[in-house]
Amino acid sequence: MPQGKVTTVPDDGLTTRQRRRQAVLAVHTGHGKGKSTAAFGMALRAWSAGWSIGVFQFVKSEKWRVGEETALKALGASGGPPVAWHKMGEGWSWIQRAGTERDHAAEAAEGWAQIKRDLTAETHRFYVLDEFTYPMKWGWVDVADVVATLAERPGTQHVVITGRDAHPDLIAAADLVTEMTKLKHPMDAGRKGQPGIEW
Amino acid sequence: MPQGKVTTVPDDGLTTRQRRRQAVLAVHTGHGKGKSTAAFGMALRAWSAGWSIGVFQFVKSEKWRVGEETALKALGASGGPPVAWHKMGEGWSWIQRAGTERDHAAEAAEGWAQIKRDLTAETHRFYVLDEFTYPMKWGWVDVADVVATLAERPGTQHVVITGRDAHPDLIAAADLVTEMTKLKHPMDAGRKGQPGIEW
Repeated sequence: MPQGKVTTVPDDGLTTRQRRRQAVLAVHTGHGKGKSTAAFGMALRAWSAGWSIGVFQFVKSEKWRVGEETALKALGASGGPPVAWHKMGEGWSWIQRAGTERDHAAEAAEGWAQIKRDLTAETHRFYVLDEFTYPMKWGWVDVADVVATLAERPGTQHVVITGRDAHPDLIAAADLVTEMTKLKHPMDAGRKGQPGIEW
Repeated sequence: MPQGKVTTVPDDGLTTRQRRRQAVLAVHTGHGKGKSTAAFGMALRAWSAGWSIGVFQFVKSEKWRVGEETALKALGASGGPPVAWHKMGEGWSWIQRAGTERDHAAEAAEGWAQIKRDLTAETHRFYVLDEFTYPMKWGWVDVADVVATLAERPGTQHVVITGRDAHPDLIAAADLVTEMTKLKHPMDAGRKGQPGIEW
């Protein structure tokens, strides 16, 4: 998208370069495909820029996004910047699990608590919070806390949040919001997902 | 998107497994971000599935998508399936250039001719035809030829086409069409694109 024209120049005392290097909060929402896929595509680009990547997968079970995980981990192991991949679906890696009982609300809150710790420590330069709109929607994570934490995050840490039904306050706080809309899907023609394409 | 219910089951004599393993033609269109990014995210997943990847970048100059190119080429060189990356912006790699004169219409037609050769030879399992809607829109490539060629492509070769204003015949031929719509963009706030995020 080779567009370079801005429609307004804010009176913020920043140079164009300073303004364009600000940390970005992006949201991919809507009911169409490509929300997570575009987020992982952005991670690909961020990794090439030399940035440490942190992925937090909410909600989905461990079978999902295995392709992206394999590829991004292969990149992380190739000598470039590191890639950390955390999955709620198989229990967050940093939590010692006492039993087999699952409490998804508590796990989602734990995931968000770790993201806050990482943001404070500036652990990564680029974060994918995959399907993070759902814990917000379901009240497992406090929207006001998310918005305030992201607004105050130190340094230049870019964050992409994916999922349907993004909260209006999150959209208001974001710099970049794209809605993915389904025009057509193979499922409409009775074709289910397939490996390599859907996951 | 953990959805598994199909709304119709076609009377095509195929098993569910055969039907779901059919080659997919996907189109990412609309004026929002994420069309190409999601296509490269799909390529990431396809690569992880063990598939050879062919990328054809139309229109954009060579400075664009450099992050994705670096990362996917690093994957291709890591011992997994190969990644071929062809750019019109710096002249297609397979063409010996006589002079410095550029004819974009002819170059676009050359790109499409190579894609047809690759589809016939089943060179790749997954193709990204990035910004390919534009040569179609501008009449540099014949839409009917594209639709017919893709309809008749042999084997299981998945194709993703990106760009604004996808032709209605292309949309009609596609299995999966997603429209990316801009809800909000940093440019609206006077912030231009930045490396690692936009390219």
